[in-house]
Order: sequence, then C-alpha cells, then structure tokens
Amino acid sequence: MYLIVVYDVDVSRVNSVRKTLRQFLNWIQNSVFEGELAESDFLELKDRLKKITKGEDSIIFFKFKAKYSFEKIIVGKDKSPVDNLI
Amino acid sequence: MYLIVVYDVDVSRVNSVRKTLRQFLNWIQNSVFEGELAESDFLELKDRLKKITKGEDSIIFFKFKAKYSFEKIIVGKDKSPVDNLI
Repeated sequence: MYLIVVYDVDVSRVNSVRKTLRQFLNWIQNSVFEGELAESDFLELKDRLKKITKGEDSIIFFKFKAKYSFEKIIVGKDKSPVDNLI
Repeated sequence: MYLIVVYDVDVSRVNSVRKTLRQFLNWIQNSVFEGELAESDFLELKDRLKKITKGEDSIIFFKFKAKYSFEKIIVGKDKSPVDNLI
C-alpha cells in the first residue's frame, strides 16, 4: 500500500511520533510523511503510534493501493528531496 | 476531483493561506485541508496561493479522481467534524 500520514500531536510527543514515522516512511513536509508500506508494517506503525499518543493527538493515514492513485502538485518549494537524501 | 492539501508556510502568510483554503476546502487538521473541487476552482485556488506565497513556503496538493480513491484511518482524535460544523 502507499501511505500519506499527517499528524498534529502535543509537543511532548512530537519527537517520538516523528522518530517512529521516520523508521517506516519518508518525510516530505512539516508534519507530513509518505511512502510505500507492507500491510504488516502498517499495522505495526499504527500500533506504535497508538501507544505513544494514548488516544490524545490526531494522526491521519490516507491509504492508497499505489503511488499512481494520485497526482502530486507542489506550489512553492519541494522540501522533501534534500531531507530524504540524508 | 478530490484534494488533500498540506502546507508549511511562514507565519506571516499563514492566515492568508488558511483563509484562502477555507473558501474552497474543509479543514481537517492543523495545516491540512481536504475536499471535492471542480477543475476551474482548483486552478483558481492554486493561482491565489501562488500569489500569496510568491515561490516561498511549500504547499502540496494530492489530487485524486474521487474520495473513494483512498481509505482514511485516524489514530487518536478526529478534529475535523466540529470545525466543519462552524
């Protein structure tokens, strides 16, 4: 599956959430990650984020069959490539 | 078309960007909007955001044929319904 994840979490948990997401997906913008993921990894990621946020905060997963399910249009700067190279 | 829009803009422009997006789409989370939009409205929205951000900032549009192109999974709180009722 292909995922876009957006999050709005308390500052006390933001580092844990970001660190966890980075292990599975690519950072593309402040509070936004995307990437290809196996179903089992998706379940693990969701589970780990649930444990960190404990019902607080808001993390939204947009789940697609594949990357070609959508078109991506960027207005302004594409911040993702440099970060993904690191 | 159906759109998900995520933005990362300078604080000096965030109110203008948010106000413009609100005229076309629904707010669902901090820095994230989504909604159904006609092609002509999409072009107008993109044009207005370009004028506000002047090549600075980063606004990403994920463009789908329809809302059923993806599945939405929320971990934690769904912040959107209350806001959309206002």
